[in-house]
Amino acid sequence: MQSEINNTPHRRYNILTGEWVLVSPHRTKRPWQGKTEEKKTLQKHTYDPSCYLCPGNTRASGETNPDYRQPYSFVNDFASLLPDSPEINFEEGLLKAETEQGICKVVCFSPDHSLTLPLMEEKDITRVVQIWKKEYLELGEKPNINYVQIFENKGAIMGCSNPHPHGQIWSQSSIPTEILKKSSKFRKHWQEHKRSLLGDYLQQELESGERILDQNEHFVSLIPFWAVWPFEAMIVPKRHIQHIGQLNEDEEIAFAEILKKLTIKYDNIFETSFPYSSGIHQAPTDGKAYPEWHFHMSFYPPLLRSATVKKFMVGYEMFAGPQRDITAEQAAKRLNQLPEKHYLQ
Amino acid sequence: MQSEINNTPHRRYNILTGEWVLVSPHRTKRPWQGKTEEKKTLQKHTYDPSCYLCPGNTRASGETNPDYRQPYSFVNDFASLLPDSPEINFEEGLLKAETEQGICKVVCFSPDHSLTLPLMEEKDITRVVQIWKKEYLELGEKPNINYVQIFENKGAIMGCSNPHPHGQIWSQSSIPTEILKKSSKFRKHWQEHKRSLLGDYLQQELESGERILDQNEHFVSLIPFWAVWPFEAMIVPKRHIQHIGQLNEDEEIAFAEILKKLTIKYDNIFETSFPYSSGIHQAPTDGKAYPEWHFHMSFYPPLLRSATVKKFMVGYEMFAGPQRDITAEQAAKRLNQLPEKHYLQ
Ligand SMILES: O=P(O)(O)O[C@H]1O[C@H](CO)[C@@H](O)[C@H](O)[C@H]1O
Ligand SMILES: O=P(O)(O)O[C@H]1O[C@H](CO)[C@@H](O)[C@H](O)[C@H]1O
Repeated sequence: MQSEINNTPHRRYNILTGEWVLVSPHRTKRPWQGKTEEKKTLQKHTYDPSCYLCPGNTRASGETNPDYRQPYSFVNDFASLLPDSPEINFEEGLLKAETEQGICKVVCFSPDHSLTLPLMEEKDITRVVQIWKKEYLELGEKPNINYVQIFENKGAIMGCSNPHPHGQIWSQSSIPTEILKKSSKFRKHWQEHKRSLLGDYLQQELESGERILDQNEHFVSLIPFWAVWPFEAMIVPKRHIQHIGQLNEDEEIAFAEILKKLTIKYDNIFETSFPYSSGIHQAPTDGKAYPEWHFHMSFYPPLLRSATVKKFMVGYEMFAGPQRDITAEQAAKRLNQLPEKHYLQ
Repeated sequence: MQSEINNTPHRRYNILTGEWVLVSPHRTKRPWQGKTEEKKTLQKHTYDPSCYLCPGNTRASGETNPDYRQPYSFVNDFASLLPDSPEINFEEGLLKAETEQGICKVVCFSPDHSLTLPLMEEKDITRVVQIWKKEYLELGEKPNINYVQIFENKGAIMGCSNPHPHGQIWSQSSIPTEILKKSSKFRKHWQEHKRSLLGDYLQQELESGERILDQNEHFVSLIPFWAVWPFEAMIVPKRHIQHIGQLNEDEEIAFAEILKKLTIKYDNIFETSFPYSSGIHQAPTDGKAYPEWHFHMSFYPPLLRSATVKKFMVGYEMFAGPQRDITAEQAAKRLNQLPEKHYLQ
């Protein structure tokens, strides 16, 4: 890539959303006098009697978790969405609101309170992949569930209120904004080329190699050209599949493997349990065909300069659009120079 | 408004952006075990020798601030945008990037290090309004400055690295994503009705009164029906003007007055210096006519439950779309019950 671009303020186009990110590579030198975060210490206990996600413990709702040994999912006790919300269609002049129905679940990744994905065994991560797959298929089949959002908030600075390794699934009747944006870009490319937009992009990235982090037989991890968060990354299946429900057994294992490798690298950047929100974007479950969709998982991690200084998406970012300092290429280079072994192991 | 809506998960449409917000009013009861923020203590010194924004002090760049007595602006020493970035047009297969040129400025609201907008005198806030107006007009006239984003990040949890009362202005050659969204909605309504979309909305809100916070001869403050942040608010001029440059003298004073009142209410919610990002959205400065645009200022404050517990826009919000717990009507009611006098005065 032209080297000037790595020294010059510029904007980059996100082919999946149609939006731009402002990149200011010359700006990484500014001093920081602002807020620092607490350095996360590791959870040392494999079981915490006060944790509402540990096996056998009783939750706020009064329900008791089974003595689970495998990833375990249940309906969120404080769900944002409910399956039976009464039908409301509110329209008054310029105001418009409508009921949203849905099901919110919590997915415990492991019975072991002290673990996180990078510290879990690959075979146990494979089970997490399998429970995501199962949930996507089961929730997606329910009437009125037209999109299934699988995600994880990791770390207190990502609003995670419990360090027990877990993620969430919010499934709902309407198709969310971010999915609509990507749907329209996927569709356009499909109509023009009868090929996957993300597949074509992946091909181009594999040829250049500049932003590739890792790959195995079935998956690639990379820093997207249009990354917003400092170390934002994406995991993309090589096969053009629409959703996680289509993974075969080999692919489940390969997905777990690349997930483990990426999250180990993340922990190694600042030798800390690296916070992020991750999420899977895939085809809606409204019964329509989405041949254009190409399932992928993204990671949005906020840490920028150290284990305690994050990138704030505020002010300009909220009112105008996202901005980043280090380039995607610099982030990829940094990750690729790190050891593949977790710093604690 | 139908009362069910205040108990039922639903989504609301933002007429200015075309996007939806998920509202889960039944969810405010859940307990919080997650991250709390430090309670902000007040700045007690009117002058801080180590503050790079105080009058007479030397900044990181080596420049010395004048002994200013009025709001004072200067070019950001660590600007994200530079006026003379070399022209780059990068297009390689699916990758697309282009140079972004611009000017970033810092605006000190007051020489007094200990103040914030709610604690400033109305006549001094009027001077802040005047410097915003001047900067909008001056920057907007420069070649290649097609949009002027005025904003403030207040509080350490909003990434503000210095408590000295100040805001920023990032002005640039391209028109940012958020502005493009609103432009298209304003334009559509204008073409259909030859009226301001926001003006029509304001009319409807004034008739209902349910979400109105305050008004004077020239301005209204309200919680928009589609608010995303817990206590998000908007200040809208009654006169349909496109940008801050069109304010007359009376309107400048009225703007300052309503700004002070809103920010006092904010501080009173949790008896703390209330953090937020605020920003002005207005017509681009690319020389075209924008009769449809209706200038307004928005506040995005993160605090939700107390001075130390904020709403996290993570996980679901990043991957699907925004979600809130308390409704806009509840937020308006809460603000309207608070005293008009600042809790410290
Ligand atoms: O320019 P500052 O105050 O150092 O930085 C702050 O505001 C900027 C504009 O909203 C953001 O890009 C930064 O992430 C934030 O920390
Ligand atoms: O459901 P939790 O973990 O209590 O809550 C967390 O994740 C949710 C989904 O991303 C967010 O809406 C909340 O703001 C966040 O604190």
